Amino acid sequence: MSTDSLLVVSAHAGDFVWRAGGALALAAARGQKSTIACLTYGERGESARAWRDGKSLDEIKAIRRDEAEQAASILGADVRFFDAGDYPLLESPEVIDGLVRLFREVVPTVVLTHTLTDPYNGDHPAAARMALQARVLAQAVGYQAPGEPLGAPPVFMFEPHQPEMCDFKPEVLLDITEVFDTKRKAMESLVAQQHLWDYYTDLATRRGVQLKRNAGPNLGLEAHTMGEAYMRVYPQVTKELA
Amino acid sequence: MSTDSLLVVSAHAGDFVWRAGGALALAAARGQKSTIACLTYGERGESARAWRDGKSLDEIKAIRRDEAEQAASILGADVRFFDAGDYPLLESPEVIDGLVRLFREVVPTVVLTHTLTDPYNGDHPAAARMALQARVLAQAVGYQAPGEPLGAPPVFMFEPHQPEMCDFKPEVLLDITEVFDTKRKAMESLVAQQHLWDYYTDLATRRGVQLKRNAGPNLGLEAHTMGEAYMRVYPQVTKELA
Amino acid sequence: MSTDSLLVVSAHAGDFVWRAGGALALAAARGQKSTIACLTYGERGESARAWRDGKSLDEIKAIRRDEAEQAASILGADVRFFDAGDYPLLESPEVIDGLVRLFREVVPTVVLTHTLTDPYNGDHPAAARMALQARVLAQAVGYQAPGEPLGAPPVFMFEPHQPEMCDFKPEVLLDITEVFDTKRKAMESLVAQQHLWDYYTDLATRRGVQLKRNAGPNLGLEAHTMGEAYMRVYPQVTKELA
Amino acid sequence: MSTDSLLVVSAHAGDFVWRAGGALALAAARGQKSTIACLTYGERGESARAWRDGKSLDEIKAIRRDEAEQAASILGADVRFFDAGDYPLLESPEVIDGLVRLFREVVPTVVLTHTLTDPYNGDHPAAARMALQARVLAQAVGYQAPGEPLGAPPVFMFEPHQPEMCDFKPEVLLDITEVFDTKRKAMESLVAQQHLWDYYTDLATRRGVQLKRNAGPNLGLEAHTMGEAYMRVYPQVTKELA
Amino acid sequence: MSTDSLLVVSAHAGDFVWRAGGALALAAARGQKSTIACLTYGERGESARAWRDGKSLDEIKAIRRDEAEQAASILGADVRFFDAGDYPLLESPEVIDGLVRLFREVVPTVVLTHTLTDPYNGDHPAAARMALQARVLAQAVGYQAPGEPLGAPPVFMFEPHQPEMCDFKPEVLLDITEVFDTKRKAMESLVAQQHLWDYYTDLATRRGVQLKRNAGPNLGLEAHTMGEAYMRVYPQVTKELA
Amino acid sequence: MSTDSLLVVSAHAGDFVWRAGGALALAAARGQKSTIACLTYGERGESARAWRDGKSLDEIKAIRRDEAEQAASILGADVRFFDAGDYPLLESPEVIDGLVRLFREVVPTVVLTHTLTDPYNGDHPAAARMALQARVLAQAVGYQAPGEPLGAPPVFMFEPHQPEMCDFKPEVLLDITEVFDTKRKAMESLVAQQHLWDYYTDLATRRGVQLKRNAGPNLGLEAHTMGEAYMRVYPQVTKELA
Repeated sequence: MSTDSLLVVSAHAGDFVWRAGGALALAAARGQKSTIACLTYGERGESARAWRDGKSLDEIKAIRRDEAEQAASILGADVRFFDAGDYPLLESPEVIDGLVRLFREVVPTVVLTHTLTDPYNGDHPAAARMALQARVLAQAVGYQAPGEPLGAPPVFMFEPHQPEMCDFKPEVLLDITEVFDTKRKAMESLVAQQHLWDYYTDLATRRGVQLKRNAGPNLGLEAHTMGEAYMRVYPQVTKELA
Repeated sequence: MSTDSLLVVSAHAGDFVWRAGGALALAAARGQKSTIACLTYGERGESARAWRDGKSLDEIKAIRRDEAEQAASILGADVRFFDAGDYPLLESPEVIDGLVRLFREVVPTVVLTHTLTDPYNGDHPAAARMALQARVLAQAVGYQAPGEPLGAPPVFMFEPHQPEMCDFKPEVLLDITEVFDTKRKAMESLVAQQHLWDYYTDLATRRGVQLKRNAGPNLGLEAHTMGEAYMRVYPQVTKELA
Repeated sequence: MSTDSLLVVSAHAGDFVWRAGGALALAAARGQKSTIACLTYGERGESARAWRDGKSLDEIKAIRRDEAEQAASILGADVRFFDAGDYPLLESPEVIDGLVRLFREVVPTVVLTHTLTDPYNGDHPAAARMALQARVLAQAVGYQAPGEPLGAPPVFMFEPHQPEMCDFKPEVLLDITEVFDTKRKAMESLVAQQHLWDYYTDLATRRGVQLKRNAGPNLGLEAHTMGEAYMRVYPQVTKELA
Repeated sequence: MSTDSLLVVSAHAGDFVWRAGGALALAAARGQKSTIACLTYGERGESARAWRDGKSLDEIKAIRRDEAEQAASILGADVRFFDAGDYPLLESPEVIDGLVRLFREVVPTVVLTHTLTDPYNGDHPAAARMALQARVLAQAVGYQAPGEPLGAPPVFMFEPHQPEMCDFKPEVLLDITEVFDTKRKAMESLVAQQHLWDYYTDLATRRGVQLKRNAGPNLGLEAHTMGEAYMRVYPQVTKELA
Repeated sequence: MSTDSLLVVSAHAGDFVWRAGGALALAAARGQKSTIACLTYGERGESARAWRDGKSLDEIKAIRRDEAEQAASILGADVRFFDAGDYPLLESPEVIDGLVRLFREVVPTVVLTHTLTDPYNGDHPAAARMALQARVLAQAVGYQAPGEPLGAPPVFMFEPHQPEMCDFKPEVLLDITEVFDTKRKAMESLVAQQHLWDYYTDLATRRGVQLKRNAGPNLGLEAHTMGEAYMRVYPQVTKELA
Repeated sequence: MSTDSLLVVSAHAGDFVWRAGGALALAAARGQKSTIACLTYGERGESARAWRDGKSLDEIKAIRRDEAEQAASILGADVRFFDAGDYPLLESPEVIDGLVRLFREVVPTVVLTHTLTDPYNGDHPAAARMALQARVLAQAVGYQAPGEPLGAPPVFMFEPHQPEMCDFKPEVLLDITEVFDTKRKAMESLVAQQHLWDYYTDLATRRGVQLKRNAGPNLGLEAHTMGEAYMRVYPQVTKELA
């Protein structure tokens, strides 16, 4: 078992699947531990069909929770539900403190979250702001919470639905070819959003094409390379330029 | 001997030492081949003392050439002089074609050059524009020059003298601690610019502090970590987020 | 009567007159319904003269309310007062919920509000942030409020007092020539701010000059074209480039 | 026959098909005249297969010319070949003057061209810079060329291959659903680039999804809306916000 | 005694020393009055050593308060402690109102504070946002607080620890050569952060080099010019370009 | 006579009047020497009326030259004509060398020129690029031209006709109230552009309003303050924040 550990802070129940499912599956394939902080079930903002079907709020939360747990299981990750309420997801000291405690508990070596801009969904930037703030607080020895002060794990922002409108520019193209089948299976566990299965498969194809375009020919990439795109919040630290 | 290969496109004779000496020394330490395309000797713009001493243009070029060769030798790199004339360095199809041929010859797996903005020195962006254009042309099978079409080596822009005024933001912090002594020796071979030796040592210290600040504590960094900062032109391609 | 409908979210009582009076008058001239959400009376921040005259807070609110109603009437619009308190206007779930309900009630086909940046007046961005958030929430079937889920009406940000300092760039120049007299009359109903009547007339002239400069000569524009400038939050959707 | 007229300035023979084929087909469907200024045949940079097949430069130019003429014909447009040489396409007073003359001849009411940034292909920005410069020169009565001074036709920049890397943000989403079959047919006439047919069909689907997301539900859009994305160089001039 | 007056809004006890100590010492040297609004003691976020030494929260606050008072005294400034709590420093109407009252009391002619972006420390932007908001509120005659409405003092943002990551670009280089010894003494009164004494001395050297590089040779600058860098929030108002 | 000296690099004959007339008149009022490098007469791009009146190229140049000399005389400045040809003004080593020689001759302590972006007129950025490049070359002792190496005079970019479209943000607001009558007289000597007299008077009024808004009340500004707006290329160097 690797000592590396991935933490994903996701505003709604589905976000971590569409946007970071590949990274999670790769971590599992490497024997790493992954944890998903699922701040809300997406019960109001991302469950239109269930509302139209006349389900109650509690029923919808339960459905979304089941789906998220199933997807996380396929991706080899634990999921923690904050049930902080969506649409709008409000920033609060309580949620941030909960995240600090989670940071100190799982000691992530890599953190994934949303972009800081999204004119189509204010919950996404709210989740990102809380994730970033919690990470900084968790670093301070003076912040009162169990565990040791956190190091400085790199933070990657995953790709939003309309990237250009969210100032999203692919800075890191992650090759998820070998685990794409797993990601597809996880997507298919979100049965209420079937129209997104192909949409995000097409996106993975498109990012794969760009990945090949930006890689040297000697990388031995497969014909049908699949990719996920990320931005960095902090500079990359390395011992070799590559 | 590694098959990886580094190509640095440098406007003047000293630029590759101050700005990319650590990357070059690291490449040598790994057994990689490095080549420096030195577009000019910096004979007009970066040789104030020699002009004040009454040297002729040819004498100054010879002095600067010697210094650059000595520094390159310390850094374990080959250097090719284009003698394209500085202050101003003019973009020309001839220089670009020469760079295309060099790209096809050395087949770099990594390329380093200047930033595209520098309000203090127009030669730096001119060199960067030609390096980037040559790289793209070298990729085209239809471009008539010896050798095979180039792949897509990543390009890193090294740090200018006044970074904030050049829109420079450290995106990659390279740990050069283990080779800093070599870089210092290379800097000291540029005897006419002694005032810069300490300046760039201080800069390496400062970038080292930031490097440690952005790395997790479990990286085992040394107390006196030294760094060089770079920006990326193209997205990073990877199989693991880190 | 057109089924189109305009909604203006205005921080203070005067803002919709100076900045969007032309758009409102044009809507009225086309037989469209317009509604103004006036979040505050501008009782503290934009009523300097009344305070210097020794008026009480309630008196000032009443004065500003009368002026705003008169201006709205001239512009053919309904006005709803939120009385949320200015200087500072605080973002709150209650005001946002009130806006969601108004969105669901008037079902706007076009939305106008402030810019998201204004270093001279924090109330303006606060109003814009709440307007944008309410519009997104009103779209969700799961958000509990009377009425049907909202569609996706385009949002335009009107011109702030110091445009360049607010990152304002004219993206849409609206020809208000035919209704400028009406806008001037509405401006004159704000008697306490007489110094702004000519200021905003000059601005309309200036934007009119730019409008002609950016239009083909075959548009048949009048010699004294008057204009208002706007930015878009979301992409324009169209069946013809023009 | 409409008096409106579309002018597309395209760096290579294929660009206008992939990037603006929908706009061209829509113009034809409205009975408008379209002209394509094809600055080069893409003989070096976009004809890899032909070079690998051992074709000569002249043969390649002829092949590409045929393909471009066939595509233009399907799209209902005239095409003018400048044969200015690609990889690199060099800015020159002669090409610019040729474009000025074309502007004065066809008197476009809308202009389409490339983005001003493209780190993957320097010919694209070079074409855009020349198009923009020629448009301004053609407006000056003092510029010596046949015809009347040009008005101020709006300019739209079409979508590059890697939009986020080219600072491309969809500002205008054009509904090309009704003519997509025509665009597909035009794409298929570019037989050497078969791998791009599906790529650009997928892109049209993706832009169509965004188009629906940004349009009100009362627009009556079809289930399989197809789109093309554009940016504006100059502000939109209008008599109604929409 | 000059009627000019400097107000520094500092998130933590040490910030005003490292970042604005030169400006404060210069003001004192000119006989001006300076006031520091110290929003927190930095008790959680900037006191790692004291926590590791097992000190209690109250002890740490007292230590930091003493240090800050000593440093302020050396710099010739008054310091007001808000004790608003750090890590996180939360924006609140109470703190903002306290700042408004301080603005009205000291009537600053120049204001200094943090940058609006800092991915390493959210307290810094929070302090800056409150300082800017308070300054605007203090200008309004309708804002109920003792004193006269404020004028429009210029605001300068001092340099953060990792300037490039905070979108910091030196817009004003302040020559602090003549008072650098005083600044160094003030830094040395922050005994727990000894590792920063040399760091900020090196930074002052570096900004001094840039200062000389951007000044004409006829300014008579000393060999070892020391500098501090600032950004402006509002445009400079002047009667002479220089 | 002051030893300070102003150099304005102007693309066309009229630019320095509309955009920098106030700065020139202020310099004259202070007894400073000013020089205008007028790169072209604006014979093609800014002389529409003369072309429509059937004048020849030589006649137009002569008219514009007379106007420019008269305006410069009113503003107390020398003017040097480069006659480099407008629409388009081409960057060339010859013009740049001419500017280097002028820099070395007049030894300016302040430099004014155009912005680097202007989508309505490519000659303006071309002039700015050449001015900036010449200033840097003139600093190099190794650049062969008469005179001493230049220091580092600050550079200000004056306001373009459509500021927001040229990325122009007022960074410096210059109070030109006391010399506005002189500027108006200089504008009136450009008889063919009478429509711009009031336009630029209105602009001065508008910038004056902003100037008062950004200045403290204790500056003793006049009721009808007139202003000109500028941007800085390099950081301000100062011994006092103000």
